[in-house]
Amino acid sequence: MTTREDCLAMDTKDPLAFTRARFRIPDGVIYLDGNSLGALPVTTSARIDDVIAREWGGDLIRSWNKADWIGLPARVGRRIAPLIGAGEDEAIAADSTSVNLFKLAAAALKHQAPRRVILTECENFPTDLYVLQGLGGLLGSAVELRTVSRNGLIHALTEDVALVALTHTDYKTGEIHDMAAINTAAHKIGALTLWDLSHSAGAMELALNRDGADLAIGCGYKYLNGGPGAPAYLFVARRLQDKLVQPLSGWMGHAAPFDFSDRYRPANGTLRFLSGTPVVLGMAALEEGLKTFDGISMREVEAKAGALGGLFLCLTEEQCGDAGFVIACPRDSAKRGSQVCLRHSEGYPIMQALITEGVIGDFRAPDTLRFGFAPLYTRYVDVFDAVAKLSEIIRHERWREDRFRIRAAVT
Amino acid sequence: MTTREDCLAMDTKDPLAFTRARFRIPDGVIYLDGNSLGALPVTTSARIDDVIAREWGGDLIRSWNKADWIGLPARVGRRIAPLIGAGEDEAIAADSTSVNLFKLAAAALKHQAPRRVILTECENFPTDLYVLQGLGGLLGSAVELRTVSRNGLIHALTEDVALVALTHTDYKTGEIHDMAAINTAAHKIGALTLWDLSHSAGAMELALNRDGADLAIGCGYKYLNGGPGAPAYLFVARRLQDKLVQPLSGWMGHAAPFDFSDRYRPANGTLRFLSGTPVVLGMAALEEGLKTFDGISMREVEAKAGALGGLFLCLTEEQCGDAGFVIACPRDSAKRGSQVCLRHSEGYPIMQALITEGVIGDFRAPDTLRFGFAPLYTRYVDVFDAVAKLSEIIRHERWREDRFRIRAAVT
Repeated sequence: MTTREDCLAMDTKDPLAFTRARFRIPDGVIYLDGNSLGALPVTTSARIDDVIAREWGGDLIRSWNKADWIGLPARVGRRIAPLIGAGEDEAIAADSTSVNLFKLAAAALKHQAPRRVILTECENFPTDLYVLQGLGGLLGSAVELRTVSRNGLIHALTEDVALVALTHTDYKTGEIHDMAAINTAAHKIGALTLWDLSHSAGAMELALNRDGADLAIGCGYKYLNGGPGAPAYLFVARRLQDKLVQPLSGWMGHAAPFDFSDRYRPANGTLRFLSGTPVVLGMAALEEGLKTFDGISMREVEAKAGALGGLFLCLTEEQCGDAGFVIACPRDSAKRGSQVCLRHSEGYPIMQALITEGVIGDFRAPDTLRFGFAPLYTRYVDVFDAVAKLSEIIRHERWREDRFRIRAAVT
Repeated sequence: MTTREDCLAMDTKDPLAFTRARFRIPDGVIYLDGNSLGALPVTTSARIDDVIAREWGGDLIRSWNKADWIGLPARVGRRIAPLIGAGEDEAIAADSTSVNLFKLAAAALKHQAPRRVILTECENFPTDLYVLQGLGGLLGSAVELRTVSRNGLIHALTEDVALVALTHTDYKTGEIHDMAAINTAAHKIGALTLWDLSHSAGAMELALNRDGADLAIGCGYKYLNGGPGAPAYLFVARRLQDKLVQPLSGWMGHAAPFDFSDRYRPANGTLRFLSGTPVVLGMAALEEGLKTFDGISMREVEAKAGALGGLFLCLTEEQCGDAGFVIACPRDSAKRGSQVCLRHSEGYPIMQALITEGVIGDFRAPDTLRFGFAPLYTRYVDVFDAVAKLSEIIRHERWREDRFRIRAAVT
């Protein structure tokens, strides 16, 4: 049996132990939902206060130059690049993940004409499916959305596919795609690839360029710690940047936005993938969130993510082996994102009871309990304490209380 | 001649004088650029600090329910509605102005098929033209962008027009369109109208419903005081809400976003015009910005806007009558937004000299000096002092200094 002392010893030896001090984690909370909303970095409050009071309040409009607000999207992008294995001129922060997906999918489709098939999987993150469906609805016969099951993907890579759009880490099972293999297979038949990194970036070592990815998007408010609804980002491989034109051609993507000319002329590089004015408060908070990765090796992040997840599964089997949980994520950490998923017929009230007792994970209908590990602030002892609480709730059947059965609007 | 004392007397009698205390205006600055970036409300710092420290840092993911983050877009929309003459279920905050324009133009075009003409004017705000061009590029022959001169608009309203997309207040000349007349003319031939209210809302009394507008978008960071790059908003007349489907169909626009179903099903009402996760910091700041309008009559706002602009023009003629300025905005305040525009061959260095001396307006190439008046915080004496400074700069030819001739990236 693994003891609490074993876990404390693991924390002592953890090369990433020091980064927990970069966050404010509330007392009495074990936070295993950093894959939904990353925790608050200690520097964010002061930075945003300064942006508001000095840059906005004091310098007003002059801060577009003086505080380089105008440079925020590219500057934030340069901080994201090393986390995803991109060149620093290949990533830029903008809009939401959904909007970025639309921009890149539309641009890729245009580039790949007359091919018109977008290939994706049924288990893709719902908003990704919705956005692709929306693009399909808009373009009518100019696009065909082909949605297949995960294991049908390689078989569905036929010569008519324009774009393969997938989420790297499955939000529900934690399973990760073999990005290099899919890129290679896609390129072999002349398709481009577009990866949603929302549940991957910041929790593992990604190597978009080494693995041959064409396009990617991702979320700023999960492992990147950018705060609720933080701006998202996008990646466009250098070789494609000046070949793609995206349709949300707002002034920030113009080659000379302040010329106020009446004809759109796309900027070079990633700037052309911007649309409207960047949301400065959100960008600044995202920049602070990314600073929590300063001096960190993503290889160590990935190793710790795998170890935390492995420990959770092991402890669950040791302590809740007969409680009816079904492990719904890969056991092999090389195939798993930084989360574990357990299925249980009473998953909803169990998660509510856990949250009430300070262990915050999340629930995904119909029956999945999801626990995310943010290697920068989740400790091994947190995992121990979380599973101990889970076991206690099961043992005393505390989840049977009526109050845990009422579903809230957002879970 | 109008004296400084006359202006101080106007301030004493101003029914909106009390709202200046709702803002932090830096000492030594006369801020006439609230039409580019509104000033900082006094409540914003504390609100955002609370959102960051307590809602995000303390309650973490639970704040989507507990702090009603999920309700922010509609709640902010309900505050915008009375400023634009909309029902409270007709406006919602989301994304950027550019992205919202794309969503509504695409939705309207789909609804109006087989009509495929979008009518706009060459003088439209550049980003609006770019976005319409981008939509045109994406849809190819399914859309025809017809760009005519301002006075050719009514003549161009032929039976093939699907949508008329215009900016209500011209950013460069301050001239406003007769919204009711254009709506009526458009409806007569079966077209819909889409108004960009960015340079109007918050500075005048708008009556979208009374005037028969179909769709509108607008910016949160100008007269609405939402902060740099604040989220934008959109308006869809109730009669159209459930008839239009927009293509950026992200999960926030889904009828049941937390069901995570794999098929997009649009929500009812304005919610279907949302796309991705709302940027909470930006939304909360915009909500604070909108509170500066609490208890204010928009009729009084409009009256003061007209009076401030009129005073500026009058003082300019009195004090700088022979300086080579050409008035480039309507003299009739009923036809003018809350800004005045002066053309001058040396406009750029003159504006730079003014800014250096604490009078912040802005410059629009090639030769326009633009001064915006935010009736909630601009005083009559500010207008006096600004023109006095302008006159001094002209008299002493201070704009001839070399340092005022270097163009910055953002002006």
